[in-house]
Amino acid sequence: MTTSLSKLFDIELPIIQAPMAGAHTSAMPIAVSQAGGLGSLACAMMDHATLERELQTVSGQLGGRPYNVNFFCHAVPQPDPRREATWRQTLAPFFAELDIDPASIAPGPGRMPFDQACADILKAFHPPVVSFHFGLPDETLLGQVKGWGAKVLATATTVDEGLWLQARGADAVIAQGLEAGGHRGIFLTDEVSTQVGLFALLPQLVDALNVPVIAAGGIADARGVQACLSLGAVAAQIGTSYLLCNEASISALHRQALQSEGARHTAVTNLFTGRPARGIMNRYMRELGPLREDAPRFPLATTTAAALRAAAEKRGSSDFSPLWAGQNTRGCAPIDAAAMTRRLAGAA
Amino acid sequence: MTTSLSKLFDIELPIIQAPMAGAHTSAMPIAVSQAGGLGSLACAMMDHATLERELQTVSGQLGGRPYNVNFFCHAVPQPDPRREATWRQTLAPFFAELDIDPASIAPGPGRMPFDQACADILKAFHPPVVSFHFGLPDETLLGQVKGWGAKVLATATTVDEGLWLQARGADAVIAQGLEAGGHRGIFLTDEVSTQVGLFALLPQLVDALNVPVIAAGGIADARGVQACLSLGAVAAQIGTSYLLCNEASISALHRQALQSEGARHTAVTNLFTGRPARGIMNRYMRELGPLREDAPRFPLATTTAAALRAAAEKRGSSDFSPLWAGQNTRGCAPIDAAAMTRRLAGAA
Repeated sequence: MTTSLSKLFDIELPIIQAPMAGAHTSAMPIAVSQAGGLGSLACAMMDHATLERELQTVSGQLGGRPYNVNFFCHAVPQPDPRREATWRQTLAPFFAELDIDPASIAPGPGRMPFDQACADILKAFHPPVVSFHFGLPDETLLGQVKGWGAKVLATATTVDEGLWLQARGADAVIAQGLEAGGHRGIFLTDEVSTQVGLFALLPQLVDALNVPVIAAGGIADARGVQACLSLGAVAAQIGTSYLLCNEASISALHRQALQSEGARHTAVTNLFTGRPARGIMNRYMRELGPLREDAPRFPLATTTAAALRAAAEKRGSSDFSPLWAGQNTRGCAPIDAAAMTRRLAGAA
Repeated sequence: MTTSLSKLFDIELPIIQAPMAGAHTSAMPIAVSQAGGLGSLACAMMDHATLERELQTVSGQLGGRPYNVNFFCHAVPQPDPRREATWRQTLAPFFAELDIDPASIAPGPGRMPFDQACADILKAFHPPVVSFHFGLPDETLLGQVKGWGAKVLATATTVDEGLWLQARGADAVIAQGLEAGGHRGIFLTDEVSTQVGLFALLPQLVDALNVPVIAAGGIADARGVQACLSLGAVAAQIGTSYLLCNEASISALHRQALQSEGARHTAVTNLFTGRPARGIMNRYMRELGPLREDAPRFPLATTTAAALRAAAEKRGSSDFSPLWAGQNTRGCAPIDAAAMTRRLAGAA
């Protein structure tokens, strides 16, 4: 196991900090990689200038230590004015309640996928590991990434997705159990009922694939990491447990929610971005129903949801905030990410 | 672990065969208990005469060896003629297609919960373990069961349910991850989004409870059993892996479905009985949507679903059959239940 891990990523502890766009900056991956795990820089919400600056910081501070940079690689949908208009109609009572003029919300792209400009920036840094969510970028882009020797990770939520990723050159596959917080990596189908708990998914992927498998979803302590290794994983990718760490940049409202009883009840919702993602149940999800077929396609739902969130948060309410979290928040603790990494590895 | 197990149930292997009403008779629990695990007699669909006969067989064949008898303990709902009529309207196209005269389907109770008559029959046998699904029977009934020294098991799908069961006298709690096949044990809420993967549920229940915790859901081999024990369980309760065993009494169509590629896609559905239960996706679930708010309340949906199933199966189709299965069918094998028990325990 250690051999395989050090061969793959040159890390000492079988812990990968999950990239969580919007929940941390470069400080978190730096701390995790310095502690002997694999830190991940979440790049999905960065513009190109920020990406370059953050890469400079990470590579500068880590010297030769390994780190991971993570991107989304969705297809950008055509704008759909009719769908957008219907959706805004659905949200109209909320706009009224929160004094939002919907005309002031510019429909926008939300989040950009990995593209040539990203690859050009990355090339100067030769990041040792690059991970992708929602599949893989096209062959040309992927070829460039592999060309400078980066190990490529990608997320599978089903056995079919794992086989697809392996066939297209992923060096390791992340088995994302449906316990996981944030966006589901699902990309071969829209059917959310295909999503599988980690106890079922992990051993099936380990058996089906030749590449190493990394476990994700619901892992919150050293016992959980051990259980993953028993099921054949080479490492665990953990996000939620890092959310209260000193390096996390989530809002005070999000921190509060993670520490409340309410954190026990999460659900998969597409209301915030257009793709299914797990967060703590709140008013927005409860009143509309967490999964809606009429939500704008990813990432086009982001702009209206962001407007609702901003207005509600200004009033001190998280009723419309994406409170991303997995199904196990018991590992969360307000400590340094380095200490969390050692704790998760059972090396505290 | 072994001490705690033998103290609790007096069994050698940390394997409980899950009770699966309709999928086996007494032959399966007898084989499992003889092999050193804990066999479970599923009594939810038995009339009182059958219950008595099966108990005679099990206790006779096992001599002093431990076994478990399992009951549902739902509240029987009032018939709701209007709801039933609307539901039959929804099913009308299927009735027409399958040449079913809906007037010939008597609305009926479907499945009976544990009651005084059951307790009276059980008393003569003093079964060493009694397990309950959907909560616990009332205090008087539970007192009788505990009075003859039976250990009482019950299923929790959330931390709240685990605490509720422990407070009311359960001797051990089964953590049912949402990977599990068949009926969800959920009983404190109707909200299916509260259901949690085993990787998240198990350690949280282990931490929250003083009584031992048994893991269920998605466990299909000795690795899975080991992983449960790492997470703090004293034993694993496994159902799906036994479904192709020689002692299973499922239909040829169900066997076929379990061995098909389609078995990879299961969903939680309330169409067959009125309560959420996991089975392999089929036409009935796909066309109506697997979870419907307008389905008759458990167990009143059983009669119409049974009529559809019978008519379709007569034509060789499993389009309307409840193909109960968990999210991991890779452990299924057409072998004896005794061999399966040893295999799951890693003692094969």
